[in-house]
Parts: sequence; structure tokens; C-alpha cells
Amino acid sequence: MQPNAQGKSFEIPQTMQAWVLGGPQELSLTEKPVPAPGPAEVLVRVDAVAICGTDLEILYHGLPAMIEGELPFNKNFTPGHEYMGTVVKLGAGVDEFSIGDRVTVEIHAGCGRCERCREGMYTSCLNYGKNYGDQSKGHRANGFTTDGAFAEYAVNHINTLVHVPDAMSDEEATLVVTAGTAMYGLDAMGGLIAGKRLAVIGPGPIGLMGVAVAKALGAEPVILTGTRDTRLALGKKLGADYVVNVRREDAVESVQRITAGQGVHYVIECSGASNALNEAAQMVNRGGRICLAAFPLEPVPVDVAYLVRNNIYVFGIRGEGKGATHRAMALMSQRRFDATIIHTHTFPFKDLPTAIKYQRERIEDAIKVVVKMKDPCD
Amino acid sequence: MQPNAQGKSFEIPQTMQAWVLGGPQELSLTEKPVPAPGPAEVLVRVDAVAICGTDLEILYHGLPAMIEGELPFNKNFTPGHEYMGTVVKLGAGVDEFSIGDRVTVEIHAGCGRCERCREGMYTSCLNYGKNYGDQSKGHRANGFTTDGAFAEYAVNHINTLVHVPDAMSDEEATLVVTAGTAMYGLDAMGGLIAGKRLAVIGPGPIGLMGVAVAKALGAEPVILTGTRDTRLALGKKLGADYVVNVRREDAVESVQRITAGQGVHYVIECSGASNALNEAAQMVNRGGRICLAAFPLEPVPVDVAYLVRNNIYVFGIRGEGKGATHRAMALMSQRRFDATIIHTHTFPFKDLPTAIKYQRERIEDAIKVVVKMKDPCD
Amino acid sequence: MQPNAQGKSFEIPQTMQAWVLGGPQELSLTEKPVPAPGPAEVLVRVDAVAICGTDLEILYHGLPAMIEGELPFNKNFTPGHEYMGTVVKLGAGVDEFSIGDRVTVEIHAGCGRCERCREGMYTSCLNYGKNYGDQSKGHRANGFTTDGAFAEYAVNHINTLVHVPDAMSDEEATLVVTAGTAMYGLDAMGGLIAGKRLAVIGPGPIGLMGVAVAKALGAEPVILTGTRDTRLALGKKLGADYVVNVRREDAVESVQRITAGQGVHYVIECSGASNALNEAAQMVNRGGRICLAAFPLEPVPVDVAYLVRNNIYVFGIRGEGKGATHRAMALMSQRRFDATIIHTHTFPFKDLPTAIKYQRERIEDAIKVVVKMKDPCD
Amino acid sequence: MQPNAQGKSFEIPQTMQAWVLGGPQELSLTEKPVPAPGPAEVLVRVDAVAICGTDLEILYHGLPAMIEGELPFNKNFTPGHEYMGTVVKLGAGVDEFSIGDRVTVEIHAGCGRCERCREGMYTSCLNYGKNYGDQSKGHRANGFTTDGAFAEYAVNHINTLVHVPDAMSDEEATLVVTAGTAMYGLDAMGGLIAGKRLAVIGPGPIGLMGVAVAKALGAEPVILTGTRDTRLALGKKLGADYVVNVRREDAVESVQRITAGQGVHYVIECSGASNALNEAAQMVNRGGRICLAAFPLEPVPVDVAYLVRNNIYVFGIRGEGKGATHRAMALMSQRRFDATIIHTHTFPFKDLPTAIKYQRERIEDAIKVVVKMKDPCD
Repeated sequence: MQPNAQGKSFEIPQTMQAWVLGGPQELSLTEKPVPAPGPAEVLVRVDAVAICGTDLEILYHGLPAMIEGELPFNKNFTPGHEYMGTVVKLGAGVDEFSIGDRVTVEIHAGCGRCERCREGMYTSCLNYGKNYGDQSKGHRANGFTTDGAFAEYAVNHINTLVHVPDAMSDEEATLVVTAGTAMYGLDAMGGLIAGKRLAVIGPGPIGLMGVAVAKALGAEPVILTGTRDTRLALGKKLGADYVVNVRREDAVESVQRITAGQGVHYVIECSGASNALNEAAQMVNRGGRICLAAFPLEPVPVDVAYLVRNNIYVFGIRGEGKGATHRAMALMSQRRFDATIIHTHTFPFKDLPTAIKYQRERIEDAIKVVVKMKDPCD
Repeated sequence: MQPNAQGKSFEIPQTMQAWVLGGPQELSLTEKPVPAPGPAEVLVRVDAVAICGTDLEILYHGLPAMIEGELPFNKNFTPGHEYMGTVVKLGAGVDEFSIGDRVTVEIHAGCGRCERCREGMYTSCLNYGKNYGDQSKGHRANGFTTDGAFAEYAVNHINTLVHVPDAMSDEEATLVVTAGTAMYGLDAMGGLIAGKRLAVIGPGPIGLMGVAVAKALGAEPVILTGTRDTRLALGKKLGADYVVNVRREDAVESVQRITAGQGVHYVIECSGASNALNEAAQMVNRGGRICLAAFPLEPVPVDVAYLVRNNIYVFGIRGEGKGATHRAMALMSQRRFDATIIHTHTFPFKDLPTAIKYQRERIEDAIKVVVKMKDPCD
Repeated sequence: MQPNAQGKSFEIPQTMQAWVLGGPQELSLTEKPVPAPGPAEVLVRVDAVAICGTDLEILYHGLPAMIEGELPFNKNFTPGHEYMGTVVKLGAGVDEFSIGDRVTVEIHAGCGRCERCREGMYTSCLNYGKNYGDQSKGHRANGFTTDGAFAEYAVNHINTLVHVPDAMSDEEATLVVTAGTAMYGLDAMGGLIAGKRLAVIGPGPIGLMGVAVAKALGAEPVILTGTRDTRLALGKKLGADYVVNVRREDAVESVQRITAGQGVHYVIECSGASNALNEAAQMVNRGGRICLAAFPLEPVPVDVAYLVRNNIYVFGIRGEGKGATHRAMALMSQRRFDATIIHTHTFPFKDLPTAIKYQRERIEDAIKVVVKMKDPCD
Repeated sequence: MQPNAQGKSFEIPQTMQAWVLGGPQELSLTEKPVPAPGPAEVLVRVDAVAICGTDLEILYHGLPAMIEGELPFNKNFTPGHEYMGTVVKLGAGVDEFSIGDRVTVEIHAGCGRCERCREGMYTSCLNYGKNYGDQSKGHRANGFTTDGAFAEYAVNHINTLVHVPDAMSDEEATLVVTAGTAMYGLDAMGGLIAGKRLAVIGPGPIGLMGVAVAKALGAEPVILTGTRDTRLALGKKLGADYVVNVRREDAVESVQRITAGQGVHYVIECSGASNALNEAAQMVNRGGRICLAAFPLEPVPVDVAYLVRNNIYVFGIRGEGKGATHRAMALMSQRRFDATIIHTHTFPFKDLPTAIKYQRERIEDAIKVVVKMKDPCD
């Protein structure tokens, strides 16, 4: 039991409750040892965790777990990666965080030794998945390749932690990594967003946070396209200057009309729709840039000639690199936008399967469903 | 008749011989007025012009002329854009060049007033094609939207000119813009090429110059893939460390084998093959970058998910921007590689149709066919 | 008399009232011909003009006019460069603006043909000052090398114009270029400002706008240092999280204390104080970046060793390049901060000398003094 | 005794000979335990080590050791940081290197967890010097803050190792890090060097390598300024197009004359002379960039106004970051220049004091003095 500077300390049990993945779609609640943090790591008591679309992919298909050639089934694996909590134990050499600190997380702890990590691109770590056995490189991606947060405790490398200010609720804190992904996409496209015309395709959580972050950084206009008016309405609340329901209007024509034929400078594609990249290309002006934050599962026809003839750059982004999560937190802690409006439901830990069902089936128009470790009705 | 500093001057006739495009594939030799250079322009006596694959597109299909909604047929238009010559007359205010200077050209003279030109991206000029009528913005793309060099004289904006050193032949000077395109592709991908692993797909003129420029900048290894051994052999002469004939070996497997499974950092795709982008994605490592310098004419299936999951950036490049032609010339004038080995045939001006036929049908394995204004047999 | 789309048109007289510079400090009101806009230019009816510290330098010392080897005295020269007005006549080929448009200006219209202009660095135009005689390159820097706005009309290249939204007052519009300078400084340092710690040295107009723009982009904390509490109080209103009066506290120690010894990532130095660069270096952390937007008139001792040992980058900025004025306008038109609080005084055109006196002597704590063409008492 | 793949293995003794620093200038040969590599580390048998000017600073003044507030005297500290050797033992989890690999080193092994390391700027690690005690962050800078290579063995983090090709001699391999520093400077300035005009001030080892690397990357012209003709002659051999002996000619005037008044785009300042930064500023054109790779020990007068008015960027560089050493090695292994001509003297390990004396007093015009572990006369 390590006390913190204020004498705060936490009883840490030997075992904890944790959901583990059996076969596809089989989550069961079990008992696991509480893990111990190594050097440069801390133990986090999970306080809240949001369900991500990727969690559903993992549960159903074992992807994009991205351990080459391996699936996560029947390995006593605990998913869950969009979480926040409280630091309850420090590994050797950690003074960057204190016992009792509230923290939220990003996913990727790079190995720190491969070529990409050395250049700061830790979400593209070339030793992804290597945290086991003799040749462990110390990489972690909690909820993907190392145990995640559908459990009472999780070990985190300090590189994945962001301090949560007192005024921010647990629920909001679970959304920071989503905003961080949007921020990373903007950074990849050059980051000078103020005064630029920008479209977001797809009002899912990343798309909505893309609207919010781009607007906070001064983009104008911000145009959001999607299929559901309720989602588009949230986009407006988060800063979209225009929304386009593509069931009623053509997305490209609308963007061109809104921009008086000039097109936008940037597109963040968050829909994964088959034709989204082609539409994005038709939305940007010559020399424009597109960030791909979502993707169709199958190869799709792409008009490559249009990309080349128009000097369009396309940035596939993986995760939320380059400190983007910290920068997104800065905007959120300064109340530049209200991320909480995409948080729609809360369930207690024991009801994780229900939470997942809500997320997956979009019951009651669920966007972000959060599981609280303490029963919210307590 | 303006004399230069050394008293050199040139008799400039009233009219000149020029090939003009009638309907598709119809080139005829005719008489045209010699054009007059405006402010910031010079008159160039064309000394040599190379045939580009894009010339063939224009002759046959009117594309990629890229004047929105227009084709170049039956407009008294003179194609030809890879040329060099001698400055014979200066427009108002020009002291950057002198009468008698040997010059080679790049294509794009941006308008200088649109948003892209103002940020230095003049090949993505938003006023492309606007050099006529009341609303002329002064954009020029000789051989595309303004008269080109299948003629005795051409007007050039000074922004499109590069000095040719005495030691460089006319023929070699026509190749500089091709090397400039390759250089622009490398610049777009970040430009720090020394010590990086790089693959070039497609040993056409741009691909071969891509090999040469990348090797000159220190890439290692440089791997060239293609279908014809004669072309691949030229690639080796230009600096390729490895060549892969994809009729005999799988391109992706070969790159992975050569790089011991690490993949390359950069790919320059110069083939326009249907599956080239997918193959390029499989060639780069996570976080790798791909430059598209060629394209299939029709939409092709692309594994977008792979790009996103692997944080791959794809750079469509248009022309040869950001001063890349000047920088390519610097390498060539310093003899870092011998571009002349891709120059295979020379014809006199009057035999332009034969030159085009050689280029198009790759007769005698033609790569770069050059037309000299003075009969090379003179 | 050209009508605009709405039939609006303006009577343009043959002559206009204009202040011209005689010897040092000698401004006299005179009559001049109304200038005519050339291609890519418009005629602007000046509606309001702010006095800049640089105007004072020009009036007193003829510097930083930066025409090599020349002073602006007794050349019938009209200063004044921070202005806004109404487009009343279009030069040939202009459709980017319409008669009646309200516009504000940035200073530098690059030549569009030198190496720096071609790469988008038009404030570093290598043909600065060359707008006259046979070798005119068409460069303009109104109020520096071409006639400015202490007059009823001015000719502007369209590259120097920014549209003013209806809701923005004339006075506020004159401040956009100042905010643009601050934005350019942030861009030069990399532009990813959200969540970064930043200090501004010197609460003059650029420093105060630096606070506002950096905060609007999400910097945290923003620390402002200066000598006068009234100015620092304005800094707080514009978004500074902390202000330090260096008459009472040591600037470096304060920054280190506020940041818990971590230092800031960025400094914008706007004071021109002798030791400011050294202090800025002590404020940033290792690897930090400093923008110099002001300077001492004489060489000052600099601890170069500290810069090298700590991998500090120092960015001297000239003007407001790379479209920064447009981007600053976007923030201001979106009401991200209230620039008008630095506008302290307004005088009619005929009282320009009084306005200058107020600015120079900081009478009634003047910050930005604006001259309105229409008497504000009308 | 770990065998490598080829069954190669090395007997590793318990103790080794090592030079340790007593008081200033007091080096004595002693016996130390052979250190053991931890995770991500290897044990290197030192085969050759070059003397660096910084070694002399450390020996005489304890600086720039840069452990805040500490000097390296009387701490059983072994200096020496420009070395190469053979991997003889692998720490846990290392498969990037094998027993028997020849390697050369760079200095900085960042902590991997601070903000700078996470963005790839590991030479600006914020945990510099923290490799000891409870709060060890694992940072290493061998020869500065952890034991260096004036000893038979050294422990290296794998991030500091570069493979040495068979064809490269031990002596040449010790020079790679010096070339890497020059490369890092070019990278910091943007890295697009081909075709750019560049000056190097100061023909010390870094300056001479700066000439070589810049020329290898295609800079033209490369101008080297210095005081000694012998050094300048080496600069010519390494690729300088022009050399200027500043005892006979003014450096700035010469650069302006050679460049026909255009100035250079880039300067690498490697002299540490009092007026070097001012001269560099006068050498570059407007918008030019300066890399500071050396520095005067005392503050010097700097014309800050000139930097600002001319939009000059100044890059202090610390060490050899961003993989530059690997990229320099790539040029050297491809024989783009002959670094060995700056290697002037070799001494056996036991004669280290003599080697240092030669380096320090520039006896026989010593440039790089190398100590070989095996007596070169063996």
C-alpha cells in the first residue's frame, strides 16, 4: 500500500473481477489476479470505460487486434480500451503520476526502440503486440494486445496516461481518446486548421469529435454529412456550420454548393462507406487533403486518377498518436466543446453485455455507452 | 531584336512552323504567328522536345488537359511540353534571364494569386487553364492549356525556366522535367531519403528517374519492379540495387524478401497498374509513405482498410512543383546520374509523327524519343 | 464608374487628399491623383487606418522601410499600412472581389516570381521594393515601398485583401493584420498550439494579439509578461491565464514557477527588450521554440551556447505570411476573442498628426489609435 | 557466454581496464567491473574511440556534461563517446543485434517517456542524466552522464547502435556520429538540400563532415570558410566547391561574391566564433536558415533585428537526433565521401593521454585522433 503525497492510499486486493473473451461473442465475468505494474507503469483502478466500435469488432471477429496471424479468442483476454480511472500503485521509477491521480488513457504504448517509435510515431510501432515471452519488447495496447479495462484494474505504461482535471466527470474523461483520434487526424493533415473549410463524413463518435475539435481550432465552415438527423443535430451542437443528410441530398453537391464551388481544404472520413474516399476526393479542392479514420472492410473501387491529377494527399491514421490525446484533453478541459452530449447511456459493470448490446444495436440511438465500475444508481 | 550582354541577338521571324491538333490523332504542320512575350515572360526558340506519355493521351483522348469540360481538339492548339531551347526575346521587366540563355522548362506557371499558388503549390493552381478572355488569370501550362513546343517558338513565364549548363546536351536537358517530377514525389513524402529503403513500381521514364534521384539522394536499397528486363537493366544502371521482374517474381514478396521482412519506407508508384496501390501498401512498413505518380484510367479496387490500419500516407502528385525541377537539374548538372540512357531516339522536327509513333508503339524499345528542331543529320 | 452585381457603384474623383512624408517627422496633407489599379489589383477607398509602431519608425528614421540603401523622405511618399476600406474599382481580370466589398489588408504583395514567392514565403520576397522603373517586378508593400493609406484611396494587389464580414466594425477590421502577425509566428513555430504551454513577452499590440490567438487555438497556460499592469490586465481579458509584471517579479522565475519548473514549449517575443531572447531561451524547455516578432535596434549579448545546448529553434518572422491574416480573420469573425479592447482612440483623418502623437506618446495609455476617414463625430 | 547465430561467442572478463576522471585534467587508468547490459541493452567491446572536442571540455571544465548542477569530477567516471566496437553480450529481449556484430554509436539514449522523447526528439530528452537511483528514467549519454568508451567495454542501449558494414574500417566507423551531427543539422533546416546554396563556417570535424554530407545530398555551391589552408584543402577534397580563408578574405563578402549577391539558403555554423551568427545571417538570403552546431562560451553581441527583418530561422542543434546517424552511415557505406581523410592519428589505448594532447594542441595538424584498443602496431 503506497501512500501518495497527501497520504492517500488504496487497498489493492489480490484478485479482481474481469470480463474475459472466450469464443466470438462470449464474454464472461471471472476472477483474475490484480496485475502488478513494472518500471514506467502504474496500476489503474478502472472507474469508467466506454464501448468502442472496435470492441465489437474484437468480440465478433477478433479484429482489428492486429497481432499478426493471431486471434484473441480463448486466451483469457480482457478487452476494453476507452477508460479512465485512478492511479493506485506506482511501478519503479514513476514520479510523473501520484497515487490518487485521476487519469484517462490512450491505447498505444510503443516499444520505444523501433524505428517508428524513435521518430515519435508510436501508434505505428513495429513491435506491436510484442509484450510476451523472451522477446518481449514491452509494447502494450491495452484492450487489443494486453489486458484492457473490462475489469476492476489495469496496468498502464505512463506514456498512455493523461491527467483528468477535477471538474471533468468520469464519463467525459472516457471520451478524450476519441477526441484525440480526431486531433491526430487533423495533425496528420498539417494541423493549420483555423480558417480552413473542412468536411466530416460520418457522424459516429470520431466524426462528431472531429467536428468539435476542428471547430474549436477555428475551421470554417465545418460541414458534417450523414444519414441520421439525430446525429447531425448533435453535430450542429458540437459546432458544425452545416449538416447534410445524404439520404436527402448528394454529399458532394452539397459541399460544393455550401462552399460556392470551391470545395473544402480538408476532409475527415469517419464513415467507412464504400464510396467515401471517392466522395472525399470530390469534396476537396485541388491540393486538398483527406484523413481516413474509418474504412470499409472489403476493397472498394477508388478513382486513383482523380487523386493524382488533383494532387490530393490521403492520410490513413492509426490510433491517436503524437500526443494528440493530451492536446484534445487541453481543449476539453478548457470547455471548448461539450463532448458529453455524445455520451448517451450508462450501465453498471455487471451489465457490460447489456451495454455492448445497446452500443451495437444503437438502442435508443445510443452513441457512446459507458460502463461505470460503481453502480451509477449507488 | 534585343541584344544580350554579349551582344548576342536573334532574328525573330513573323511566323513559325507549328504542329497543331485537329481532331483526335490529327496533327498537321502549319504556319502560326510567332507569339510575343508579356511581362515576366520570354520567347524561347525551341531546340529540342521530348515526347511524353501524356502527349499521347492528349492526342488521342484530349486528356489530361484538365480544362474543365473542354477538349483541345480543333482549337489550333500546339501540344508538346518537355522541351528546352534558347531565350531569344525578353518580356517587360525580365532580367532573370538573358538573350541567348539555354533553358529547359517545367510545365506549370501558376496564376500567383489563388490560395494554392500563394502557398507555393503552383502545380495545383486553382486558376488552371485561365489564360484567355476578360478573366484571364495568367495561368500557363504550355502544351496543355497554352501552346506548347511542337513548334519553332514558345512563350514561357520565367517561373517555368531552368538554366541549362553548357556541358549538358539539348537532349539531356529535355529530361530534366521528368527527373523533377520524381524529385517532387520524394519531396512530397518528406524528402529525407538518405538511408531509407525505397521501391519504385514501373520502369517508365518517371520511374527510372525516380530510381536515379532516390539513389542520388542516398536511398538504400532502391528496388525497381517492372515487366521488361531491358528496362530493369537500365534501372540498375541508374542506381537500383535490386530489380524485380514481376513476370517471374511476385513484387510484394520480392520486396519483403530483399528487405528481410521489414518492407520499404517509401514507394514511388509509376506504373498505373490496377493493383499497384495495393501492392505499394504491402511493400511499405507500418507508417510508410506512397507517392502516386501514375494512375489507372478506371477506378480500381483498393484495400483502404490496410492503409488506415497501417498509418500509410498516400501522396497523389500533380506535375513537378515546389522547385523540384531546379533541384533535379542540380543533381544532373553535378553528374550524379546519367539521364541520357533513357533517351533512345532522335527525329527531326518534320518527322514528329514518326517520333510519336516510336514513342507510342515503343518501337525498338523506345523510352524517350526526342525531336530536334535542327535536323540531327545536319 | 463600374457597378457591382447589386448595381452599387462609386464616384471616383480625379484627385484625393493624402498625407505625404517630407523630411523626418514632416507629414503634410496634400492633393494627389487617385491611383489606378492594374491587372490583379483593385482600388480601395480607405475607411479606417490604425497607427503602427512601425509607422513611427518610418516617420522618424525612415526605417524599417527596407528598400536597400534608400530612405523614404521627400519622395512624395504616403505611409500607413494597417487599414481597411471598400473596393471601389477593379483592375483587369479581377473577379475575386466585387465593387462594394469591405476589405482589410495585409502588407506584402510578393513579386510572385522570385524563389521565396514561388515557395509561398511572399513576405520574404527577394524583389522587395521593386515596383518602379523598367525592372519593376510588381512587388508592393503599401505604406513601406508603395503608397499607403494615410490617404483617401489606395491601390492593392488582390493577394493583400481579406474580406470583412458585415458584423465587424471598421475599427476592428484594422486590427486583423496585427492578429495575423501573431498567427504567422505561431505557424512558423509549427502551429500545433493546443495544449502547449506558451509565454508572450511584451504586451504591445502584437503581444496582446499573440495572447488572444494562442489562447483561441487552445494553448494552456498562456503567460504574458510586461511592465504595465493596465496592459497586463488587457492580456487577461484576451485569454492570458497568468500575467507577470516584470517590475515586481523576475520573468524567467515566474514562468518556471507557474509551469512547475517545466518551462513553456513556445515563446512569442514581442518586446524588443535587450535581454528578451536570453529570457525566452530560459523560459522554454529543452527542444523549445521561440518566435521573434520584435527586436532591439542595436546588437545585444545573446547566450548562443544555451540555444545550442538546449536544441532551441529561433524563428525571426517578417510580416504576416502564409495566409496567416486570413486565418486570423477567421478566428475574429467567429468571435473567438475581442480584439477591439486594444483599440483605444479614434481620430478623424485631418487629425492624423494628433493620432500619431497619441500613439507615440501613449497618451491616455493609447494602444491602437485608429484614424477614420469619415469624422467619427459625423 | 552467449553464442551468436554463427556460434561466435566472446569470453567476457569480470573486470576491465578503464580510464577514469579524477579532478580536472586528471585521467588515470584503473580496473573496473565489466558492466552488465539490462533489457534493451548490449555490452560492446570497444574497438576504437575518437577524441572529440567535447571530451576536452569535459576533462578541463566538466562541461557540457549537462547534469544540472553537477560536475563529473572524482566520480569514477569514464569519458569517451565517439566509439565503435563489437557486440559481445545481449541484454534481455534484444534480437535487433547479434553477438559479433560490429557497431558504431550515437550518444543519446532518451528515456522514452518524456514529452520530447515521445515526439522523437530524444537528444532533447527532459530526463537527461537520470539513470541512477530510485528515480532512474533509464536515460543514457555514454561519456557524458553514463560511463563511456575510454575503457575496454561499454553498455549501450540498442537505440544508440548503428551496424557497421564489413568494408568499413574501425577508424572510419568512429567518424559516423560526427557525420550524423551534420546530417541532423541539415534535417533541422528542412532537409531539402539538393540544388541549394550552402555555406559551412569552420572546418573542424563537424564542419568538414557538414561539407561532405551537404555535397553528397546535392547542395551547390558548397562554400567552406575557415582560417587554415590545410583544413580548407580537406574541405575541397570532401566536396566544397569554394573555400574562403578568412584571414585573407572577408567571409560574408566572399559568399556574396561567389553567389553573385544572392547569398546562400543555408549556413551550418561550426566555428563557435564570436561573430559567426551575425556573419551567417549576412550570408543567407531573406528567408534563409542557419544551423548552430557550435557556440562561443560567453554571450556575444547578436544583431537580432537582422534576423527578424529577414525572416531568418536559427536552429540550435543538440547532438545527432532523428536517426541522422543511421542516415549518415548510409551515405558513408555507399562511399559518397571519404570521411577517413579527417582521421589523422592513431594511438594505442594505453596512450590515451598522448592522443588527447595531440587532439588538444592540434599537434601535426591533428583533426581526428583515434585510440585503438588493440595496439595498431600489433
